[in-house]
Amino acid sequence: MSAPKQSRPKARLPRGFRDRGAAEIMAEQKMLATIRAVYESYGFEPLETPAFEYTDALGKFLPDVDRPNAGVFSLKDDDEQWMSLRYDLTAPLARHVAANFQHLAKPFRRYQTGSVWRNEKPGPGRYREFTQFDADTVGSASPSADAELLMMVSDVMEALGLQRGDYIIKLNNRKLLDGVLEASGVALDDREKRGIVLRAIDKIDRLGVEGVQALLGEGRKDDSGDFTKGAGLSPDQAHRILAFVAPDAQDEEEHLQQIGTLISTSAVGAAGLNELEQIVKLLHACGYGPDRILFDTGVVRGLDYYTGAVFEAQLTFPIKNEDGEEVVFGSVAGGGRYDDLVARFTGQAVPATGVSIGVSRLMSALASRGALAAVKAPLVVVTVFDKAEAAASFAIVQELRAAGIRAEAYVGTGKMGDQFKYADKRGAAIAIIEGGDERARGEVTLKDLALGAELAKSVESRAEWVGNREAQKSVKRADLVAEVRAILGPSSGIKS
Amino acid sequence: MSAPKQSRPKARLPRGFRDRGAAEIMAEQKMLATIRAVYESYGFEPLETPAFEYTDALGKFLPDVDRPNAGVFSLKDDDEQWMSLRYDLTAPLARHVAANFQHLAKPFRRYQTGSVWRNEKPGPGRYREFTQFDADTVGSASPSADAELLMMVSDVMEALGLQRGDYIIKLNNRKLLDGVLEASGVALDDREKRGIVLRAIDKIDRLGVEGVQALLGEGRKDDSGDFTKGAGLSPDQAHRILAFVAPDAQDEEEHLQQIGTLISTSAVGAAGLNELEQIVKLLHACGYGPDRILFDTGVVRGLDYYTGAVFEAQLTFPIKNEDGEEVVFGSVAGGGRYDDLVARFTGQAVPATGVSIGVSRLMSALASRGALAAVKAPLVVVTVFDKAEAAASFAIVQELRAAGIRAEAYVGTGKMGDQFKYADKRGAAIAIIEGGDERARGEVTLKDLALGAELAKSVESRAEWVGNREAQKSVKRADLVAEVRAILGPSSGIKS
Repeated sequence: MSAPKQSRPKARLPRGFRDRGAAEIMAEQKMLATIRAVYESYGFEPLETPAFEYTDALGKFLPDVDRPNAGVFSLKDDDEQWMSLRYDLTAPLARHVAANFQHLAKPFRRYQTGSVWRNEKPGPGRYREFTQFDADTVGSASPSADAELLMMVSDVMEALGLQRGDYIIKLNNRKLLDGVLEASGVALDDREKRGIVLRAIDKIDRLGVEGVQALLGEGRKDDSGDFTKGAGLSPDQAHRILAFVAPDAQDEEEHLQQIGTLISTSAVGAAGLNELEQIVKLLHACGYGPDRILFDTGVVRGLDYYTGAVFEAQLTFPIKNEDGEEVVFGSVAGGGRYDDLVARFTGQAVPATGVSIGVSRLMSALASRGALAAVKAPLVVVTVFDKAEAAASFAIVQELRAAGIRAEAYVGTGKMGDQFKYADKRGAAIAIIEGGDERARGEVTLKDLALGAELAKSVESRAEWVGNREAQKSVKRADLVAEVRAILGPSSGIKS
Repeated sequence: MSAPKQSRPKARLPRGFRDRGAAEIMAEQKMLATIRAVYESYGFEPLETPAFEYTDALGKFLPDVDRPNAGVFSLKDDDEQWMSLRYDLTAPLARHVAANFQHLAKPFRRYQTGSVWRNEKPGPGRYREFTQFDADTVGSASPSADAELLMMVSDVMEALGLQRGDYIIKLNNRKLLDGVLEASGVALDDREKRGIVLRAIDKIDRLGVEGVQALLGEGRKDDSGDFTKGAGLSPDQAHRILAFVAPDAQDEEEHLQQIGTLISTSAVGAAGLNELEQIVKLLHACGYGPDRILFDTGVVRGLDYYTGAVFEAQLTFPIKNEDGEEVVFGSVAGGGRYDDLVARFTGQAVPATGVSIGVSRLMSALASRGALAAVKAPLVVVTVFDKAEAAASFAIVQELRAAGIRAEAYVGTGKMGDQFKYADKRGAAIAIIEGGDERARGEVTLKDLALGAELAKSVESRAEWVGNREAQKSVKRADLVAEVRAILGPSSGIKS
């Protein structure tokens, strides 16, 4: 029943999407369970919103507002209304809170995990569908809500197996930035100029002080000769902003004093400094010092909607990319305070603060150092010697499963050789054979595939190994489970 | 910073989508974990495919081909190629297998769970995004692969807490149906007529024998007067098909004999009978009798792509809908053999068989009898008496969490009364108060909110309860964890 060739579709994935296999999925499961456990221990509870929102409800808060292809996946519903796939989990939260405000316990504390979609140009390691894991506290202006999130992210990183020092969470406050801008004579309602300044600061790790200075002034020509227009600040204005972003202070205390001077004429700046000090005070009282959470004026966060505290978690160890080159991995989690998102719907400002962990990014980083390896239970493949007697093989797998051991009877149509190859390719730990004669004697044969592979290293040809008898033994049918357990070792069970 | 009113979006969900809260999400998590454990114990391993596929790769295999609004969510990518959101997990599997055929262990055995999307008219309990949980064996024509799936579905139902007799899995074979059609003189390549016949049979539970008879003949007028065109079979042809679908046999054996006679002239029918007999033989040998898996000629399954065994799991107990009326719940899982899906891409038929569990449907059914209740660990809310001393409350939650108890410090800005209301609304088990005087004495106050609610039932007003002292007690700060544990009881831990 083959289809005519000309009409056959190609078996391929759309650009920027990918399939994921068992090892990665199981590692992600483990990671999500770990994050979930920490979030729940802090009292957060799950919420799920659908993939689609009305486009107008999502708003335009995409992080990379300066990228040409930035966008969302949108389509028109039957009733001509535009819907979009969510690009993050914060915009749907704001919609949910606005729609259910009266019924929610406040502060409303929820976590959510799931796929988000970005209609952006894909690249190496850059996909158009990926997983986020967010937690937010909505309805509290208290700095303790921000401090709590910072401690929680730190706890998550360590629960995932990172050592102290493997990561650092950098904390800043948008109001401080606005204070410096205001004190420097930059009008805060000039959103375009403010945006250029924030994006320039955000690039300090990559471009250095000189690069940022150029972007604060007339502009900057990069290595390829492309020119990026600058914010057009005066040298004195640029100097003040650089003094804030790249201070020459010896320690945090001196830095904070310098900032106090820089923003002394700005009310919003003073408010930011007060918030920051309250957060840091609570963090220190709870034992979260600068080895975990560090004040850093270089942290901006791309999203336009932040209004107060902003922070991001970075990994400090070197990470290799697919080509084996060491790369700066950047942020694996980030968040901050956004007090205006719900107001988009209701007109009433609702203070909120949240964090988003980039699960897919963090996972690839952890994988590069072998953390979070898959935890697949070993598999036993029971071969089927005579297809007419398949029931005997099924009886064996039923017995093994009842004992908590992962087992499958071969359900293909291949001969014994194919069945061993199958067991090998599946990475099975043991293959079991029960031929007619053995059954008559009340015996079965166990083939230790891991041991067989070990032995195969010391023999010349694969063919020789296939005949190798050391890795297999006959046992009494009645001792089957005990003998399988003996080969698998202690942690063999499904439930372990 | 309120937005001008005219530009405010409405906080509402697109039609047919919904938010889900903690209880439902946690119950679904538990259900998915249970299904996953059974599938893995059978040797299946996870695969994940993206939400999007190219539209031509998905094909047109939607179940309800006779519904006017049946469809998928589609949009054009930047390069003008049409992409669609997956409407099931089988079509993406076929694409994955076709693209990776050479590298896969065969038979390829994978499970997948995730959202699927249908661009259909929503209705009560009928959403446009829902969760499925599939397992498939690709690359085996053996009836043992079908039999294994049937046993696995039965095991899943019981692992989810259903008693034997609460569910029944009905098994049929498309080749038998084709055999009866062929033996009745209906041309099998008349896909339209065959489709009308299959859909008519599918309605036997609802319309009865007479209704199906009308649909096999000229057609049927329903209660509202609408006329559905029939298959146009002769009375003799219709009679043969009804003899197959609604037999008058006393038992399964007699029924199979009758079918043998009905299809005696059809090769495809004989093949179907042989497959069925092999499956049933293996099921019986493994102890899965007709109390769990039952041959039933009335099972058709809507999807056009099935080519052999078809089956569906139904719940046998009465289920109430949202209005409290008892309803026939229908299928909660279904599947069968589809040997042509991969051939769409490669031209080469690859035998395959699979099952899909309708997680969202099954969950609402189980919820109606209180199974799968949420397993939320109890929560302790630590109030903040003096905002300037929040660190003391945070120290308490850190101590509780370290002892494995879910705890949060109040991070809102409300007064003590608001804080107790908050703890109440969150369903917290205990509220903790540490005022300045108490701290000086080395004491804290525990308020048993569950006991308080009990006591409140016997007092006249809520106000009276708030003052009720029986539900609260002062304890030594040093005994905090032990005292909290004593109130929460044995299964209080996060890790329990």
